[in-house]
Amino acid sequence: MQERDCGMVVVGNEILSGKVHDSNSYFAARELRKVGVALKRIAVVPDELEPVAEEVNYCARRFEFVITSGGVGPTHDDITMEAVARAFGRRLVVHPELERMIRDYFTERLATGMKMAEVPEGATLNAAGDLRFPTVQLENVYILPGIPQIFEAKLSALLGRFATDPYYIRTIYTSAGEGTIAEYLKACLETYPALLLGSYPRLGDPEYRVKLTLESKDREYVERAFDHLIQLLPRDMVVRVE
Amino acid sequence: MQERDCGMVVVGNEILSGKVHDSNSYFAARELRKVGVALKRIAVVPDELEPVAEEVNYCARRFEFVITSGGVGPTHDDITMEAVARAFGRRLVVHPELERMIRDYFTERLATGMKMAEVPEGATLNAAGDLRFPTVQLENVYILPGIPQIFEAKLSALLGRFATDPYYIRTIYTSAGEGTIAEYLKACLETYPALLLGSYPRLGDPEYRVKLTLESKDREYVERAFDHLIQLLPRDMVVRVE
Repeated sequence: MQERDCGMVVVGNEILSGKVHDSNSYFAARELRKVGVALKRIAVVPDELEPVAEEVNYCARRFEFVITSGGVGPTHDDITMEAVARAFGRRLVVHPELERMIRDYFTERLATGMKMAEVPEGATLNAAGDLRFPTVQLENVYILPGIPQIFEAKLSALLGRFATDPYYIRTIYTSAGEGTIAEYLKACLETYPALLLGSYPRLGDPEYRVKLTLESKDREYVERAFDHLIQLLPRDMVVRVE
Repeated sequence: MQERDCGMVVVGNEILSGKVHDSNSYFAARELRKVGVALKRIAVVPDELEPVAEEVNYCARRFEFVITSGGVGPTHDDITMEAVARAFGRRLVVHPELERMIRDYFTERLATGMKMAEVPEGATLNAAGDLRFPTVQLENVYILPGIPQIFEAKLSALLGRFATDPYYIRTIYTSAGEGTIAEYLKACLETYPALLLGSYPRLGDPEYRVKLTLESKDREYVERAFDHLIQLLPRDMVVRVE
């Protein structure tokens, strides 16, 4: 099966200025991984038309689908809809179904709320679980809000359609540093070149110095590579496996 | 004074696959902001030559300087030095001073450690506070490791050279939602068009619904805009100010 890949565009002055620690990309990375989708790029860009449009255009051309986070509220700095429209050379139009929902919801201050009925021309709506408002989609781009609770609920409701075959993973914790184990990793990759082998040093942890992750979509392959690497590594260097 | 801007390239399969929640970009965003540097872009890309080289090249042309995080250890997947070299059309060469330091440090396993003496041709070394190894710089790109403790120490040692005039910030917490306050924000921006006005809704907090940040490098300007917005907002909507 062909691997599905994905890019993510985070619209976030508040992240670039250090006011907020983005959690949406971390949530998306974990959830997409679980359903077998490879997140290939996360770009955090300012709440400005041109940077958002350029990044959405870049990701939409390169990846099977794109998720955006943020910039979809009713205030002056919410420009994601217009930027996605620009990325595809579309106009912004009022979506009749969204308009109806917003009229029902914003009983007062309707003038400002109506901004949220505007979507790129040709956009479709996806049901978002038990949330009131649907997720707007244009071509392969899914436009999600930045507020973590809503982002997470909306993404979770979309995961079913993104799902493909998952990755299988094994983990080895070593007491030796990266310099010491590098040659064993290299030898393992020579025998299992298709293995995704990650090496994550940790400082100041009394239990281990490096966490190694072995991954593949072929469960047999990752198990054979795991057994091989365990054989290669001096026994006293292996603290724990998962 | 001209505003200094910066881009950040995070080299991180472990972040894209959701194994690690990146903290380096959050640290960098806060620290750069404090010294008056505008972080304009954060891109998380895989540990692969072409995506890293392309993103470094993009940022180096657009921003005054660039910080990279990750991919500089001795293992097979550490490709940042080669990617930065490629971004500038340079070769990888052994840096004599780094070579000497690594010979002193890696008494055993020298063969694998020597990979860390390779830098893009023309690179220079910056002292990194009380850390043993210096920070490699090529043109306007500073190459930092991904391990948070070392990343933070190395970036902190560089901040002095990045420093320019800082931003001044005031904060207003409101009990009303974004839809309700949007018109007051718009009116404030009409009078103070150069104000950086951020609006951050928060769900489920008993204290407030929206945090507003008012920023400028002109302290007088931000204070006048703050007073103006406080006048505009109905008094019972303002929970707290900072």
